[in-house]
Amino acid sequence: MIEEICRKAKAASVQLAQLSSEQKNKALCKMGDLLEQNCTQILEANQEDVQAARAKGVKEALIDRLVLDKGRVEAMASDLRGLTKLTDPVNEIVKTWTRPNGLIIGQIRVPLGVIGIIYESRPNVTSEASGLCIKSGNAIVLRGGSDAINSNMAIGNALRAALKATGINEDAIQVVPITDRAAAEKLMTMRKYIDVLIPRGGANLIKTVVEKATIPTIETGTGNCHIYVEPDADLKRAIDIVINAKCQRPGVCNAAEKLIVQKDVDKKFLFDMVSALNLNGVEVRACEKTMKLMPNLKPAVEEDWYTEFLDLIIAVKIVENIDEAIAHINKYGTKHSDSILTADFNKALKFIREVDSAAVYWNSSTRFTDGNQFGLGAEMGISTQKLHARGPMSTEQLTTTKFFILGRGHIRE
Amino acid sequence: MIEEICRKAKAASVQLAQLSSEQKNKALCKMGDLLEQNCTQILEANQEDVQAARAKGVKEALIDRLVLDKGRVEAMASDLRGLTKLTDPVNEIVKTWTRPNGLIIGQIRVPLGVIGIIYESRPNVTSEASGLCIKSGNAIVLRGGSDAINSNMAIGNALRAALKATGINEDAIQVVPITDRAAAEKLMTMRKYIDVLIPRGGANLIKTVVEKATIPTIETGTGNCHIYVEPDADLKRAIDIVINAKCQRPGVCNAAEKLIVQKDVDKKFLFDMVSALNLNGVEVRACEKTMKLMPNLKPAVEEDWYTEFLDLIIAVKIVENIDEAIAHINKYGTKHSDSILTADFNKALKFIREVDSAAVYWNSSTRFTDGNQFGLGAEMGISTQKLHARGPMSTEQLTTTKFFILGRGHIRE
Repeated sequence: MIEEICRKAKAASVQLAQLSSEQKNKALCKMGDLLEQNCTQILEANQEDVQAARAKGVKEALIDRLVLDKGRVEAMASDLRGLTKLTDPVNEIVKTWTRPNGLIIGQIRVPLGVIGIIYESRPNVTSEASGLCIKSGNAIVLRGGSDAINSNMAIGNALRAALKATGINEDAIQVVPITDRAAAEKLMTMRKYIDVLIPRGGANLIKTVVEKATIPTIETGTGNCHIYVEPDADLKRAIDIVINAKCQRPGVCNAAEKLIVQKDVDKKFLFDMVSALNLNGVEVRACEKTMKLMPNLKPAVEEDWYTEFLDLIIAVKIVENIDEAIAHINKYGTKHSDSILTADFNKALKFIREVDSAAVYWNSSTRFTDGNQFGLGAEMGISTQKLHARGPMSTEQLTTTKFFILGRGHIRE
Repeated sequence: MIEEICRKAKAASVQLAQLSSEQKNKALCKMGDLLEQNCTQILEANQEDVQAARAKGVKEALIDRLVLDKGRVEAMASDLRGLTKLTDPVNEIVKTWTRPNGLIIGQIRVPLGVIGIIYESRPNVTSEASGLCIKSGNAIVLRGGSDAINSNMAIGNALRAALKATGINEDAIQVVPITDRAAAEKLMTMRKYIDVLIPRGGANLIKTVVEKATIPTIETGTGNCHIYVEPDADLKRAIDIVINAKCQRPGVCNAAEKLIVQKDVDKKFLFDMVSALNLNGVEVRACEKTMKLMPNLKPAVEEDWYTEFLDLIIAVKIVENIDEAIAHINKYGTKHSDSILTADFNKALKFIREVDSAAVYWNSSTRFTDGNQFGLGAEMGISTQKLHARGPMSTEQLTTTKFFILGRGHIRE
């Protein structure tokens, strides 16, 4: 059955790749309309999921991510319509050149084909990911979490109906109705039909996909983000930046998890910083050197340096110099987002060049790593690997290029 | 031991990424010089490999790929020096823009880090791949075939000495001294240290890597290439093109393996084509419709349509129309290089857009899919997958980008 679903998506992808921007935008508007028109059914299906989750004793924080209401459905619809304003990446001629023998060679941007996505709880991902795939001319196979299966199916049905109504093969959007582990693992081997697999979710999900998938994957999301403070930084502003990066939304991947401070930074900064963090309800875990200054803090253990807390917790480390800071970030970080606070251009440049992360900041909160904040439009996820796409992935990252070669009877001598 | 090798390469990659173009070019020249200065030792090591291969009864065609002489070593040296003329892709500012809130965001090109390569017999790959990696600021772990182990070690030693002599950590070039299967499979899981794994070799090697690797891989090389002839093509030139694509070098991946002919093409073309192929020593395997015209040909079996013969064999198929031709290529092909011969721009455009291959040709032999022929300089291989790099991979494809974000104390509202 999984194979049949993937085969259908692949077959539909042929038509998808050839659609005009106008046809795709028309479909996106219709997808928004039908989400709104089917709002009642979607909310009923969602209620089933929410009740089942409550019965299973799922935590309220997770239920909040699962639950839909009229406003959330309208936001999903509006996001789909918003995609019509983005540039269509497909058919862009990236480059063209002529060879000495007269061959004209170029690269044209084309859809990847079929995108697979494996994700957890939030049902709005179903419409968001579908919208990005349609915009970029790809078919999509969606395998959401079991908690949201009724919501996902209801949303998927509305989106498929919108494709059909605008003359597009509805098989281009496939919601996998089975949510057991075996089905997910089968999906990960459908190399013949799926061109790229994107896991969106916790560290365990991503680890499983990386180990089991034979399809090329793009790792997303885990963010163990650092802020590093040099003595010459604007230390007053540094407190605002750390509080913003840690507290504005602690459960997201671009929130700061670690504060690294150069040893010559005015000690008053550390005391003020810890007070401000405590005042904002943040638990501070300290390295040995920090413990000597503030023996009342909780000591950090080795594991903490690797951990994405996703909570009101931060670990603080004092280092000898920028090199130690960079080495620490490259060892313990997740290659997501890291920031240096300094007045010195040379230090900033060194940090930007040597920190091996998708987004490297100078004098800023890390909270801007996001497709919308970067001005790229919506995003499919934030890639923390280096191959193909790095950082926020929007429609262009869902495409590839092919070479075209125009000859006049050319043969190789 | 494999882990230790990879760990060293990773450690060396930090310095590699920060080298100036001048330092890298100096190292490449020295690498060429030391290959020539160590020519005697390299040829002695190669003789050991050749004798061992002969004793094992390896075919002469394969021994020809293994054997080195003074001319081949000089060519390797000259290719390394040639890399100094290519543009350095590292530190290119790909894009920069300012957000409404004043944040300046940009993308800068950086090395991938550590490239792993698993390859068969030809020892010149050792110097070619090392040169491309040094040019693009990457460390490299080379795992060649057991047949060439002594040659590879000797070449690797000369290249490492060149790094050392130019102030670069020699650990940036690592030739894996163990060539058993277990060592290769261990290498495929070194995700912590290796950023991308490139298999270069036969279909079996590539299949194993795709199945066992947890490191992101780039598939290269298998080329089941097609030439499709429309009735309005220059049929006289078509014969030259097919002969060139099939016979000029039948053992390479961009050689044509299939000829597809639209049913209304003048029958004389098929007879002349088959005569020309036979005259060039090519065995023709025919589809049912072709068999009706030329009952003396050998009938093609289903498996033939999937096969990369790499030999003087071609399979010929008659189709109803361009749609059948495209569907056939997309079903049986390997997404490498395919060509349409026609006078009609509309048909050419349809073929270019709908054939899902790395390189799609109009009125040309497929033999041009190659880094040098495309004008990209040297190549690491020809990617037949869609993620990250598609088609000939040169130095730019051995890099990634990172986002840099310049703020003035920015926090997210």
